[in-house]
Amino acid sequence: MTANLFENLPAQLPDEWFDALVEAGNVTVERIVSRGHASPASGWYDEPRNEWVVVLRGRGVVAFEDGEEVSLGPGDHLSIAAHRRHRVAWTAPDEDTIWLAVHYD
Amino acid sequence: MTANLFENLPAQLPDEWFDALVEAGNVTVERIVSRGHASPASGWYDEPRNEWVVVLRGRGVVAFEDGEEVSLGPGDHLSIAAHRRHRVAWTAPDEDTIWLAVHYD
Repeated sequence: MTANLFENLPAQLPDEWFDALVEAGNVTVERIVSRGHASPASGWYDEPRNEWVVVLRGRGVVAFEDGEEVSLGPGDHLSIAAHRRHRVAWTAPDEDTIWLAVHYD
Repeated sequence: MTANLFENLPAQLPDEWFDALVEAGNVTVERIVSRGHASPASGWYDEPRNEWVVVLRGRGVVAFEDGEEVSLGPGDHLSIAAHRRHRVAWTAPDEDTIWLAVHYD
């Protein structure tokens, strides 16, 4: 059975959309769909696991509390260490941005 | 620091090409580049971990020992249980096929 990362996109998207594709032990693989969403300025993610993330479509900016900002387009991937505080500062307003994230210990 | 899954593709590709992007504990994330490659007919993968795989570019066919064949194009993803014997039966001969695989317990 297959499914497609670019299909079954929500028509309405009041918030970022998360689909868990794998949840097993200490590993989660999820698809995230953004449509102009950004985290609130105070909305730091402080995650207990490491994260590897790639943008498959669209464009987004990940900001870190230390001031670093990373702009990601299709194919760009980034590793975020556990507890490194970060937020989504910007995503493209005019198209869906599709991320794939792997969370692991 | 970012890198791009669609860059740094090998010019010559006598065999499928594997890049480990994450290796941590029981989790591996790897990019695989195929260019018309297939596993030998007897070349079953029998892996001790589960695998989640997606095609990001190109096209490939995964065949299972039980006879099932799954054709994957961009965005199509598939979960393969540990020890379910499978092989790459075909990949597009005229373009690079780029896979992303997550191996996990």
